[in-house]
Amino acid sequence: MKYCSACGSAVVRRIPAGDSVERDVCPDCETIHYQNPRVIVGCLPVWQDQILLCKRAIEPRYGYWTLPCGFMENGETTAEGAARETWEEARARVEISHLFALFNVPHINQVHLIYYAPMTDGRFAAGPESLEVALFSPQAIDRRQIAFRSVLFTLQQYTEHGAATPRLFTGEAREPSPDRMI
Amino acid sequence: MKYCSACGSAVVRRIPAGDSVERDVCPDCETIHYQNPRVIVGCLPVWQDQILLCKRAIEPRYGYWTLPCGFMENGETTAEGAARETWEEARARVEISHLFALFNVPHINQVHLIYYAPMTDGRFAAGPESLEVALFSPQAIDRRQIAFRSVLFTLQQYTEHGAATPRLFTGEAREPSPDRMI
Repeated sequence: MKYCSACGSAVVRRIPAGDSVERDVCPDCETIHYQNPRVIVGCLPVWQDQILLCKRAIEPRYGYWTLPCGFMENGETTAEGAARETWEEARARVEISHLFALFNVPHINQVHLIYYAPMTDGRFAAGPESLEVALFSPQAIDRRQIAFRSVLFTLQQYTEHGAATPRLFTGEAREPSPDRMI
Repeated sequence: MKYCSACGSAVVRRIPAGDSVERDVCPDCETIHYQNPRVIVGCLPVWQDQILLCKRAIEPRYGYWTLPCGFMENGETTAEGAARETWEEARARVEISHLFALFNVPHINQVHLIYYAPMTDGRFAAGPESLEVALFSPQAIDRRQIAFRSVLFTLQQYTEHGAATPRLFTGEAREPSPDRMI
């Protein structure tokens, strides 16, 4: 951030009174511009013991596979966002069951929330951000082809524990991955 | 947002190519300024069957009681943020146990994440954002004095179910409360 989004003046970095963190502050209109982590919402869509994955048609991680997920939007709930992303990327309708995984990625200021979500029917198709969408047996998934560590974590927990218990699995990645998985 | 934070030009509202939502877009440098929900992180700090609450010294809801919670910061995990807020507002050290409640407030673009967190000792004190901090028996809490609906929801779930099961309780508030509780 270089300019104040409220008045257009150049901002300065400063710790505001009563705060302990340096922020972008406007010296003219005194607006403090907070920057906060973003929420990624998505689903683990399941149909007859198979998992729906999307091959990414966009960067980052073009050509790698992911669970349908994306940035949560203003005005929606986490579950609504997860279902929306599943429709947008995989053209699949799901019944959101419960929050399955919470994955922190503090070095890129993200929190990933993945819902366990049985598909309401077996229908799916590639949305505009996907090259291809397909159902996989958990055992048949090649971890080297997975786009994000939160997705790998979710798939591993599902393979190990199943979804029978509405348990929340939590994980985190604190620095860039050596194999460039985000 | 009126001005582009990257170049200072006046922004326009427009649906970017490949998007479906109107954004603030800079017609000069073409930066798209996304606005996304914010995460509130906090704790349900427990000491000998009592719950630690803070009386707010700041707006909104000055003078009302809350669990220690606040905006998640860049560079931290949800659990770290929850423990940080508990120290800042209540000068209490906690052992984060598990995520206890997820509460959506889409009409103000917030997601609240509350961790169940036994206190490591019985010590606490008012931080700069609190008028007073105190331990309460769950039954002794007056719901009319609670600041936020996510806090009320969390207290109700705890009273009803306890924390024995590491279960996640999820709730939401879709519009302003008639009694002005946020």
